[in-house]
Amino acid sequence: MQVEPIVRAALAEDIRAGDITTEATVPPDLRAEAEMTAKQAGVIAGLEVAALVFSLLDTAVEFIPRVGEGEAVEPGRCVAEVRGPARAILTGERVALNFLQHLSGVATRTRRFVELVAGTGAAITDTRKTTPGLRLLEKYAVRVGGGQNHRYALDDAILIKDNHIAAAGGIRAAVERARRRGGHTTVIEVETQNRAQVEEALAAGAGIIMLDNMSPAAMRECVALIAGRAVTEASGGVNEETIRAIAETGVDLISIGALTHSVTALDISLNIRAA
Amino acid sequence: MQVEPIVRAALAEDIRAGDITTEATVPPDLRAEAEMTAKQAGVIAGLEVAALVFSLLDTAVEFIPRVGEGEAVEPGRCVAEVRGPARAILTGERVALNFLQHLSGVATRTRRFVELVAGTGAAITDTRKTTPGLRLLEKYAVRVGGGQNHRYALDDAILIKDNHIAAAGGIRAAVERARRRGGHTTVIEVETQNRAQVEEALAAGAGIIMLDNMSPAAMRECVALIAGRAVTEASGGVNEETIRAIAETGVDLISIGALTHSVTALDISLNIRAA
Amino acid sequence: MQVEPIVRAALAEDIRAGDITTEATVPPDLRAEAEMTAKQAGVIAGLEVAALVFSLLDTAVEFIPRVGEGEAVEPGRCVAEVRGPARAILTGERVALNFLQHLSGVATRTRRFVELVAGTGAAITDTRKTTPGLRLLEKYAVRVGGGQNHRYALDDAILIKDNHIAAAGGIRAAVERARRRGGHTTVIEVETQNRAQVEEALAAGAGIIMLDNMSPAAMRECVALIAGRAVTEASGGVNEETIRAIAETGVDLISIGALTHSVTALDISLNIRAA
Amino acid sequence: MQVEPIVRAALAEDIRAGDITTEATVPPDLRAEAEMTAKQAGVIAGLEVAALVFSLLDTAVEFIPRVGEGEAVEPGRCVAEVRGPARAILTGERVALNFLQHLSGVATRTRRFVELVAGTGAAITDTRKTTPGLRLLEKYAVRVGGGQNHRYALDDAILIKDNHIAAAGGIRAAVERARRRGGHTTVIEVETQNRAQVEEALAAGAGIIMLDNMSPAAMRECVALIAGRAVTEASGGVNEETIRAIAETGVDLISIGALTHSVTALDISLNIRAA
Amino acid sequence: MQVEPIVRAALAEDIRAGDITTEATVPPDLRAEAEMTAKQAGVIAGLEVAALVFSLLDTAVEFIPRVGEGEAVEPGRCVAEVRGPARAILTGERVALNFLQHLSGVATRTRRFVELVAGTGAAITDTRKTTPGLRLLEKYAVRVGGGQNHRYALDDAILIKDNHIAAAGGIRAAVERARRRGGHTTVIEVETQNRAQVEEALAAGAGIIMLDNMSPAAMRECVALIAGRAVTEASGGVNEETIRAIAETGVDLISIGALTHSVTALDISLNIRAA
Amino acid sequence: MQVEPIVRAALAEDIRAGDITTEATVPPDLRAEAEMTAKQAGVIAGLEVAALVFSLLDTAVEFIPRVGEGEAVEPGRCVAEVRGPARAILTGERVALNFLQHLSGVATRTRRFVELVAGTGAAITDTRKTTPGLRLLEKYAVRVGGGQNHRYALDDAILIKDNHIAAAGGIRAAVERARRRGGHTTVIEVETQNRAQVEEALAAGAGIIMLDNMSPAAMRECVALIAGRAVTEASGGVNEETIRAIAETGVDLISIGALTHSVTALDISLNIRAA
Repeated sequence: MQVEPIVRAALAEDIRAGDITTEATVPPDLRAEAEMTAKQAGVIAGLEVAALVFSLLDTAVEFIPRVGEGEAVEPGRCVAEVRGPARAILTGERVALNFLQHLSGVATRTRRFVELVAGTGAAITDTRKTTPGLRLLEKYAVRVGGGQNHRYALDDAILIKDNHIAAAGGIRAAVERARRRGGHTTVIEVETQNRAQVEEALAAGAGIIMLDNMSPAAMRECVALIAGRAVTEASGGVNEETIRAIAETGVDLISIGALTHSVTALDISLNIRAA
Repeated sequence: MQVEPIVRAALAEDIRAGDITTEATVPPDLRAEAEMTAKQAGVIAGLEVAALVFSLLDTAVEFIPRVGEGEAVEPGRCVAEVRGPARAILTGERVALNFLQHLSGVATRTRRFVELVAGTGAAITDTRKTTPGLRLLEKYAVRVGGGQNHRYALDDAILIKDNHIAAAGGIRAAVERARRRGGHTTVIEVETQNRAQVEEALAAGAGIIMLDNMSPAAMRECVALIAGRAVTEASGGVNEETIRAIAETGVDLISIGALTHSVTALDISLNIRAA
Repeated sequence: MQVEPIVRAALAEDIRAGDITTEATVPPDLRAEAEMTAKQAGVIAGLEVAALVFSLLDTAVEFIPRVGEGEAVEPGRCVAEVRGPARAILTGERVALNFLQHLSGVATRTRRFVELVAGTGAAITDTRKTTPGLRLLEKYAVRVGGGQNHRYALDDAILIKDNHIAAAGGIRAAVERARRRGGHTTVIEVETQNRAQVEEALAAGAGIIMLDNMSPAAMRECVALIAGRAVTEASGGVNEETIRAIAETGVDLISIGALTHSVTALDISLNIRAA
Repeated sequence: MQVEPIVRAALAEDIRAGDITTEATVPPDLRAEAEMTAKQAGVIAGLEVAALVFSLLDTAVEFIPRVGEGEAVEPGRCVAEVRGPARAILTGERVALNFLQHLSGVATRTRRFVELVAGTGAAITDTRKTTPGLRLLEKYAVRVGGGQNHRYALDDAILIKDNHIAAAGGIRAAVERARRRGGHTTVIEVETQNRAQVEEALAAGAGIIMLDNMSPAAMRECVALIAGRAVTEASGGVNEETIRAIAETGVDLISIGALTHSVTALDISLNIRAA
Repeated sequence: MQVEPIVRAALAEDIRAGDITTEATVPPDLRAEAEMTAKQAGVIAGLEVAALVFSLLDTAVEFIPRVGEGEAVEPGRCVAEVRGPARAILTGERVALNFLQHLSGVATRTRRFVELVAGTGAAITDTRKTTPGLRLLEKYAVRVGGGQNHRYALDDAILIKDNHIAAAGGIRAAVERARRRGGHTTVIEVETQNRAQVEEALAAGAGIIMLDNMSPAAMRECVALIAGRAVTEASGGVNEETIRAIAETGVDLISIGALTHSVTALDISLNIRAA
Repeated sequence: MQVEPIVRAALAEDIRAGDITTEATVPPDLRAEAEMTAKQAGVIAGLEVAALVFSLLDTAVEFIPRVGEGEAVEPGRCVAEVRGPARAILTGERVALNFLQHLSGVATRTRRFVELVAGTGAAITDTRKTTPGLRLLEKYAVRVGGGQNHRYALDDAILIKDNHIAAAGGIRAAVERARRRGGHTTVIEVETQNRAQVEEALAAGAGIIMLDNMSPAAMRECVALIAGRAVTEASGGVNEETIRAIAETGVDLISIGALTHSVTALDISLNIRAA
């Protein structure tokens, strides 16, 4: 129910007053069969979104997934078949692919990071650095890729950063105020840059402690200090080269903005097989 | 007027029931001064969008650009100053950066391609492979980066592809039908894969001829054949390695989906200077 | 998909808190059969819109067109039958007729002008002088009537008028700037009042030249001057008396604001045959 | 507050992704002064709507009415001055005129009918035969023209027509059910075709009795029969030729669908005086 | 058609990014059967609204009412059965109950007042003191409970209060102006505090006279004075203790804000019988 | 920013096509001064919402609070002054009071419960049993009254009830699945009916344990068993008579649906002092 308005908006953005090319050249009763094919290796996410694109245009379109959501595919693999009125298939093609390629891009990158930390106990998590308007779908794609979601929005967990600490007059004061505002159902996380701040955050009762831009050595020391009394999250400077060392410090979570702010679309094409 | 609903939706998506961290820890009357700083080299796009984020939260926030829209910046360059109520600055920070980083990412990549074809006469153009919901802003960022826009949506130019040609029974028939539907204010483009199709498209009176996935040699031959009787557009297989050779074939336009479907955010941060 | 929100809004505007007359007097399970009958001669447009009105109220209503979209009808002709729950038929009657009468009014007037220029090669085209909120449907009805659409909105073609020319510093400068902004997929039209301006517009490479408020003699001269190097559009002072002479000047297009800004509804009534 | 969404929708419909002509040719800081001038005699309605069009585009535009709302004007009369940023004036011109011309068209026709019945005691009233989406504004323009409004929508008065009577099993039953549903704040009107029905409606306690498609003689007889015990409304067959005779039968109200379903725009132009 | 947007908004408000508990713990293909049971005696209203909640989540959910709309139930009575996908039932449970309990609360309180005035000829009516956003449904529930609706909104009847009288310069002037604005389809009500005002209102031709905050004795005297020439409405100081005496004064209507501004939810629970 | 759409919708619901009484009787330039006065003792909440009602109608209205948000008032206390255009004050009066009375009703009831548990260490918390469409404001009013918020919606904390447990195959399995879905930022609560379930929930690592419908004795025993290893929440059977005993069992939270599902409006009136 939540996805439909996003898909409707995307269709409206692309179709506007009408797909005049298709209206002009394709008879209304022509039927077609098409295949969506992966052109690159990656992880597929968003099949139901793509299906919804077509069914909003014409309920007579059948969208038959040929891979599972979250399945890793090789180039050339048929991802889905699409059958029905040719007009709806041609009109919806671009929007369906725009969603599927973007979300599969998110899932693919997430999966890569998940594999790089395999065996360490660290989970990969996203951030609020998402594409405006697509947070719901991008956070979903992160889960499809094997990642975990960090807080969805500004209202469902508390993340106290340096400016909040300064404004509140210290970590302890900030955490106390946060607890009153958030209630017992809200997790409180504190961002720390060094050991002293970690100790303050622990003393204040933070549920999650973010270790921000620390070296692996410093991080390992902080994880030891925390000793399971709070969840630990590594943040900053995470890439494919650095992530294994970070994960081996023993942190619980590694958050990566690039999962969603820098998405490389997974190349997928739609080909009409027969009209 | 068109941008405001997009920004409002992005704020609603991130704030939902409230920025509870800031409400809890930052006094309502605290003022702050902040700087947005580029952490990478790139081209800045979206300054007015970022300004709108803050002004929708609190009209008392001043957003003072320190670079021009479309200006190339080096790492460390101050992009803008933000002054006003600390709550609005902290609450809006992420959304403002999400827009600014994304659009600057689009402009930066566009500029790179524009520079690679400098002197050839070829223009760089976008496609409909945009991020759902952000087409208006992404197409704007392409122009900021020095590119040209291809058609905005399915209703403002006609692009006849192979499936349309098949359904209509040939290029000539498709173009004729398209002309009747589109009227005189609508440009007609035909996708071609080979010289024979180019000739047909020319004969049918296409305004733009897309040379799809041709080798530079084939493309050069087609451009010569067309000889200015239609605008020529190269499409497919365009990347930083191949683009110069494509441009040197004499095509008028080179369209690149990756300008908008695979955006690498330009790294920009916001730092509170004084509270 | 684009029409549904317009129809929903019209129903909401008319029904608001409920059709209290029908709720009070008509049992929920009563069925009815009705006929829509033309009371005047004209061209029918909007049958699918009328059908949608009823199906949004109750999917059990059957709407069976008895004439084709765009068909010319004589007084007394049955246009459609409507069968199903009496409540939905009575509640939707007015809105369905409001759409059908208005759009048929547009198509009827368009057809009359099309017939007046028959054999001349001139096409009848609309303008942006449409009823606020109904552009999509009115432009559709113009096509049903046999006309062509001029640009849909301010973003899908460029029309340079005297004020733009003055602001840009001349026709040549205006066209050049327009070409950069619009790209290759956007047609550029220039409004001209005299032969000198036509020459300038030609030299600047305008795709369409509007001959605004010229006498037939002056228009004929300009058409000869242009000699097919641009599409020609006559505008201003067009009515049933003047249009033939205008068409015979050889212009390609004749644009008429009154097609949509001054619509005379085609009289159509709905009569319940049996309840 | 109710008008703003209608105006925003009309602007969005016309501007979509941007007024590319004006963006390309008019510098952002150019100022202009313009005049709106009546090209025909008529009654002006909608000045505040036109003003809102410009102020939504740019709050710096000044819109200075030069006639009063509802004032009758002669050709050549300056209706309003518009001053401010040239871009906003040029971009908003068409939408502002579309509203002003349409609403002035409604007011002008209403005024003509009002004048034709002057001295008779009959009031001119509108119907629900309005342009979809514009009922609020069209009903307002009817009042500006000197007419009265009939019920706004299906929920704020009860109008029992033949089909309702048939479904309910007679006028008395229909009125009784209607009274229960509508409560004491809802007026009940009954449509009648002959003297017998008028008597039934009177007996049932109808507040308004519609005399539908009766000859002036029959109407006069029914008015005498009713003798002030209900409000009387003439409906059907009303035009400029017939209305005086209808009014002289003594009816209280004459309802005319054409006030709003067949609107002839009042010709008004906007001319830039100085840029 | 009018109810669906209200239900969609309520679901969006509760579900937001997803019912994560249910997604995590309940398999997508699990089916369930549930019963809605009244825990208190009361009058049921809103069954179709509850049904709509579930069907918007999943059209496969069956909602089978076991009591009639408006039926009085005892504690323990099964109100409805719900069968279908367990996820949709669990996700929709709270919103469905929030509507059903609220509307049944309105109907229950209305019914109680209706019973307290049984036999007196007075009708119970609501006010505009409704819960923001729920007027349509609350006014419906009042009717289900046996009450009548007062005007729906500020535009469908005229209610002249003391401030309007003062601003207009007396009751007569206010009523005259109101009649011109409202037309013949709009009922005019005047609020009075004493006998003199009642006489003025009668003389001015008010359709309804509100007797505001009068003692039963004063009210009885005013009712006698009015003698059927206007509808009478008692307002102010109405509660379960006072209402019988008020009704026995002979007033036609008794309006009660508490029907909708102070709603006690009727306790109803949903229990999964079998999964 | 989040509140404005709610207030706009409430105004649209009440005003619709216009406040015809005020338009007819109150001159547009009349100014007025009014007082909002409490007629009952209670806690005021929603002053900014009431202010927004008036400012959306006319920015010239001044709304001057005379008490603080959350302040307890006695009958007769002036809550706020409203000054400005009389039309806007009269048109907005009802909607402003509808919000203010409802939210003050929520805050008043919350405060009463907070006072009843004073000194025990138990916090009062709300539920998802809110009025559809008003959750944001009702949860805010609970905080104003001194309560804490439970989870806002289905997506920002996990609450595992009996049906979830049954579907997942036990508490341990349900909690494990929930943890994977929710990530580290989401608190997990488990509903328990007895000591055995409490032990299971503890073993599974629940963050909050709901003690549902237990006697105070059983509850006390469970609190002792939990011994601070999870937050404890009492639920069910809470009213003014029972709450003290519940609080004295040592639970951390007491959740009360009636705070928001059964709101008694606080009686507040608006009186025009001078026009």
